[in-house]
Amino acid sequence: MSVKPSFRVAILGATGMVGQWLVHLLDHHPWFRVVALTGSDRSVGRPYGEACRWLLGAPMPEWAAQMIVRPTEPELDAEIVISALPSEIAREVEPRFAAAGYLVASNASAYRMAEDVPLVMPDVNFDHIGLIARQRATRNWSGTLLTNPNCTTTAAVLPLKALMPYGVRRVHLVSLQALSGAGYPGVPSLEIVDNILPYIPGEEEKLEREPRKLLGRFVDGAVEEAGLVISAQTNRVPTLDGHLVCISVELEEAISPEETMRAMRGYRPPEEVADLPSAVAQPIVVRTEPDRPQPRLDRMAGDGMSVVVGRVQRCPVFTLKFVALTHNTIRGAAGAALFNAEAALRWMGKV
Amino acid sequence: MSVKPSFRVAILGATGMVGQWLVHLLDHHPWFRVVALTGSDRSVGRPYGEACRWLLGAPMPEWAAQMIVRPTEPELDAEIVISALPSEIAREVEPRFAAAGYLVASNASAYRMAEDVPLVMPDVNFDHIGLIARQRATRNWSGTLLTNPNCTTTAAVLPLKALMPYGVRRVHLVSLQALSGAGYPGVPSLEIVDNILPYIPGEEEKLEREPRKLLGRFVDGAVEEAGLVISAQTNRVPTLDGHLVCISVELEEAISPEETMRAMRGYRPPEEVADLPSAVAQPIVVRTEPDRPQPRLDRMAGDGMSVVVGRVQRCPVFTLKFVALTHNTIRGAAGAALFNAEAALRWMGKV
Amino acid sequence: MSVKPSFRVAILGATGMVGQWLVHLLDHHPWFRVVALTGSDRSVGRPYGEACRWLLGAPMPEWAAQMIVRPTEPELDAEIVISALPSEIAREVEPRFAAAGYLVASNASAYRMAEDVPLVMPDVNFDHIGLIARQRATRNWSGTLLTNPNCTTTAAVLPLKALMPYGVRRVHLVSLQALSGAGYPGVPSLEIVDNILPYIPGEEEKLEREPRKLLGRFVDGAVEEAGLVISAQTNRVPTLDGHLVCISVELEEAISPEETMRAMRGYRPPEEVADLPSAVAQPIVVRTEPDRPQPRLDRMAGDGMSVVVGRVQRCPVFTLKFVALTHNTIRGAAGAALFNAEAALRWMGKV
Amino acid sequence: MSVKPSFRVAILGATGMVGQWLVHLLDHHPWFRVVALTGSDRSVGRPYGEACRWLLGAPMPEWAAQMIVRPTEPELDAEIVISALPSEIAREVEPRFAAAGYLVASNASAYRMAEDVPLVMPDVNFDHIGLIARQRATRNWSGTLLTNPNCTTTAAVLPLKALMPYGVRRVHLVSLQALSGAGYPGVPSLEIVDNILPYIPGEEEKLEREPRKLLGRFVDGAVEEAGLVISAQTNRVPTLDGHLVCISVELEEAISPEETMRAMRGYRPPEEVADLPSAVAQPIVVRTEPDRPQPRLDRMAGDGMSVVVGRVQRCPVFTLKFVALTHNTIRGAAGAALFNAEAALRWMGKV
Repeated sequence: MSVKPSFRVAILGATGMVGQWLVHLLDHHPWFRVVALTGSDRSVGRPYGEACRWLLGAPMPEWAAQMIVRPTEPELDAEIVISALPSEIAREVEPRFAAAGYLVASNASAYRMAEDVPLVMPDVNFDHIGLIARQRATRNWSGTLLTNPNCTTTAAVLPLKALMPYGVRRVHLVSLQALSGAGYPGVPSLEIVDNILPYIPGEEEKLEREPRKLLGRFVDGAVEEAGLVISAQTNRVPTLDGHLVCISVELEEAISPEETMRAMRGYRPPEEVADLPSAVAQPIVVRTEPDRPQPRLDRMAGDGMSVVVGRVQRCPVFTLKFVALTHNTIRGAAGAALFNAEAALRWMGKV
Repeated sequence: MSVKPSFRVAILGATGMVGQWLVHLLDHHPWFRVVALTGSDRSVGRPYGEACRWLLGAPMPEWAAQMIVRPTEPELDAEIVISALPSEIAREVEPRFAAAGYLVASNASAYRMAEDVPLVMPDVNFDHIGLIARQRATRNWSGTLLTNPNCTTTAAVLPLKALMPYGVRRVHLVSLQALSGAGYPGVPSLEIVDNILPYIPGEEEKLEREPRKLLGRFVDGAVEEAGLVISAQTNRVPTLDGHLVCISVELEEAISPEETMRAMRGYRPPEEVADLPSAVAQPIVVRTEPDRPQPRLDRMAGDGMSVVVGRVQRCPVFTLKFVALTHNTIRGAAGAALFNAEAALRWMGKV
Repeated sequence: MSVKPSFRVAILGATGMVGQWLVHLLDHHPWFRVVALTGSDRSVGRPYGEACRWLLGAPMPEWAAQMIVRPTEPELDAEIVISALPSEIAREVEPRFAAAGYLVASNASAYRMAEDVPLVMPDVNFDHIGLIARQRATRNWSGTLLTNPNCTTTAAVLPLKALMPYGVRRVHLVSLQALSGAGYPGVPSLEIVDNILPYIPGEEEKLEREPRKLLGRFVDGAVEEAGLVISAQTNRVPTLDGHLVCISVELEEAISPEETMRAMRGYRPPEEVADLPSAVAQPIVVRTEPDRPQPRLDRMAGDGMSVVVGRVQRCPVFTLKFVALTHNTIRGAAGAALFNAEAALRWMGKV
Repeated sequence: MSVKPSFRVAILGATGMVGQWLVHLLDHHPWFRVVALTGSDRSVGRPYGEACRWLLGAPMPEWAAQMIVRPTEPELDAEIVISALPSEIAREVEPRFAAAGYLVASNASAYRMAEDVPLVMPDVNFDHIGLIARQRATRNWSGTLLTNPNCTTTAAVLPLKALMPYGVRRVHLVSLQALSGAGYPGVPSLEIVDNILPYIPGEEEKLEREPRKLLGRFVDGAVEEAGLVISAQTNRVPTLDGHLVCISVELEEAISPEETMRAMRGYRPPEEVADLPSAVAQPIVVRTEPDRPQPRLDRMAGDGMSVVVGRVQRCPVFTLKFVALTHNTIRGAAGAALFNAEAALRWMGKV
């Protein structure tokens, strides 16, 4: 009988919204054991239970409540760090962790588009982890840095991946994004009750760029971006969790809504990742009721790791249109980073 | 000094959401005096103040509260009827009013696409009222029926009208629509708190068809639909009033965001309607802040009759993208029908 | 080793809000197996998955989705029926089920105050189930009917029970009740977004009466109501689940907030119910943070079966004040009825 | 014909929520002309239109948008200052303004309970302004400071004032308070969507103390506090404006709900204030529908200056219970301070 893998994990930026979800998801992870939680100066030295304004419906795990918050410095007795740091801090800190030998799975946007940093959803482009070879060669790090995409990107990329065989040319995205995506304190209630904010700083740029890398080909040790063109408009709406994206796609090969749904339902993760703890059997769940997916009802599909697609129709101006939903703080952030850490271990042959 | 015009007006379907807005807007109308409010069997014979579950923040006018609700039959001592009837009832009732000599300005969808019924926004296509000549010839009515478009359509059509000189080819629309658009009782709260409904029955079809008629040319006594193609995705969100629409447009002539804003700001209603009570000097208000328009802050622009446009940008897949907001129950319904009644009187030379 | 108990259960009124929670809670119940779901004429004969507009975040269990909805008639192959019927229907139907030999655990208000019907929260007044003897004697039923209180009552009664040793004289209650308490479609969204409804029909009367019976003494085969006097004001607020109640209590013996918290924390269910599947070790969870309990964060305490108390303070006009939270559709409805069914089986010696 | 009064007014802390309401209410004030807007260092020197994140549905007046924000120093060319400062800043700044000769009408809590500072609602205790004589004697100020109560206090005090002739002994208050009461950014949306916060720092203390001063008697140049005892529990709910308060009152003389409503409806402001611009003919509006007042529908009664009372019933534990609503940012803050400035001018004989 095989020995169960066991790794010591630290969460960087553990008091924020994504950090809280990481604590929650790591409460019963089969491989990972949390040994350190880090936070800003305001939190360092205090028990996590005091330093953190916990906002999840599920209670804070007892082990976390009593852990003393550490500074975000590469002196943690861990092998893996999951980074939920703000991007500007991540830019400075994450390379120091990678240089110091840690496996860094980051949710921050700082290095997503760097040429030698894998931007990965394991069930989409596991092979891109191969960029690590290049990273090691150029950066002289003993550790590794890999990143997951922006939360909203995840809603688009899984269905687009399933459509790539039909030639994705142009994509139009309009998002309706949940409040948790803005972190805490994030959006003031006076701005969002009986209201919509038609703007999320920096978000449209990410949505227009990241899918090209994620859907690109890994050739000769580098990523060749996919040729598709994307236009994105992003909105903040008063939901707690779950980003909904209205998507229209122009394909080279015109396929019917039925074939589209078949392709999405049939989409399977690469073999290497199928048995990872965070993998789901069905990455894309397709619903046929006229009014699904809905954030509150569908965000927990696949324990928050499946993207739910519905309303697949012909599009009068492109080929197809549909609606996709992602749990922004699980598949789109905390769960994404964990999945990446697991996938990197697999790629390294450690599990 | 000229005599002030004065007309007796009845509101059909006065107890519903749109009917309430009509009562509110007609409280101080310079030309129109409400002489009758009609309702369903449940309401007939009761004072409006009792029969109607009033939902507006502004109080119900005293004259309305005491008016006894009448049946929706063409036996009202009025010259003009404004119809806020549900479409299935409108289909049967409105022709009987038009046949009986009333000027019927309808918000219902039943006859919007009929070849001899004007579908009008006076500051967009005042000349389409000319269809009345054809209507009289074919229907043998002594009265008249004209209609206003679906609420969401109004958000799209005004900005598109301003862009018509540049050749509008393809349009992609995603809407975030307010609760009042579904009437009362409408959307159950359990379906929309912490949620989005990505579907509004019949709405996408209307959005894809109505603008073609509204933006068409009136030639030889008929409307020639505009050749543009539209794709629409509609969503219900938890706002009270104000439909927000994310719009991408492909133009024949590529213009810059700056020129676009200039064209929209400079758009003026036809001379014939500029002095009507419901006309606004600036039908399209353009905002340049990154996060506007917002439903709660901008829906009352031009007393609810201006469409507010913002976030005008180049679109990577089409030519331009922007966000437009309409007050769905004023510009999109009650105010639209009043504006049409005024415009029809102007066309008839009565004012 | 003992044989695991096993009972066939039917849910009456399974398509409504409380019915859905029953389906959810019975998905993995150790003793109960659902064999029938009943509904109104509109639903009968259709698969539950089609007939029911499912509103829970957790997905509908597959076995339920495929079950054909039955009429609510006492011809079901079950021993136990859990009733989530509306009160006016329950009034007529439940006695027929009890007469036909079923054990009926009802959430409806129809018979709660009847002299020979137990109104029970097993961890408060298990002994009241003894009223069944009287019920059998007077009604000539081969089965049994017992009821659980109004959802909001449950928030008040558990803490009051813990305070009974100090002599509860007068109680002032103000509730902030969630939308799910009104069922589906229930409260229209137009009435509750950016709003409060300061009235819930019939609710205040229930809150002022039911606790007197629940906290009464079972003497000589009858319930002697407790002498306390209650004043209640009830409000509907825009939360999904979780009724919050602000409570002030006048005690005969003035105790401190600290002693109050000790008494509540130390409160334990009667021995007979402590090992029932729906029992919780700590029926009253006391929190000391200044801003708890909060509905979204605390409603799932004890899997929704614990009442959470916080803000325990001296009251300037009475003795003590505090805030209590109950999960209205679990502890206050579906879970309450299940707990009662389990307790009745225990009382009957069947488990 | 008399000359219209005209005064130069400055708003201290003009960029916050209450400051914005002051700008809005002063847009067309018959006596007051705004000559200066002050703000914090972050805002000073910038046009108000840029420095202020405007959150009201009504648009920012053009004159305000272009005014350059000034530091909060007593060097403003104004006779009257209306203070919307945070309490800790008010404590230091307001005395300096009063010393420098300004008439200071403050919404801050800093000096409300000071023995020589009037705490005033002009239609409740106009005569308390007489404390100014004492203030001048003791403080050696050439100007004057008077304050209005906490927003929630206003909902309670007007109805209690109407009941004082019947001997108010004990009062129990539970509030459901709107988001605007917490200012901006105030309550994070993640804390209040699908949630209630059962705690507002410092609020209960204010509610338990301020009414005693407001309802006290002005005797021999001093205020003798009223003898009533109050218990308050306060909650934050997801409404934008309008604090709802559930009130139970113990009276010396038991009166019926009908007499209560008569007393409240008949309550009239003292003669001296009846013609002030901010006075309303009917300070207490009583509604008899079972489900009123509601924040969204009733907060604008009397242009936001009337308190709306409903659900007047006998109370089983006290004498009476009812629900009262105040527009927290108008009657409870901005409008209250303006009303006080007007009343102080009247007391001084300047108008």
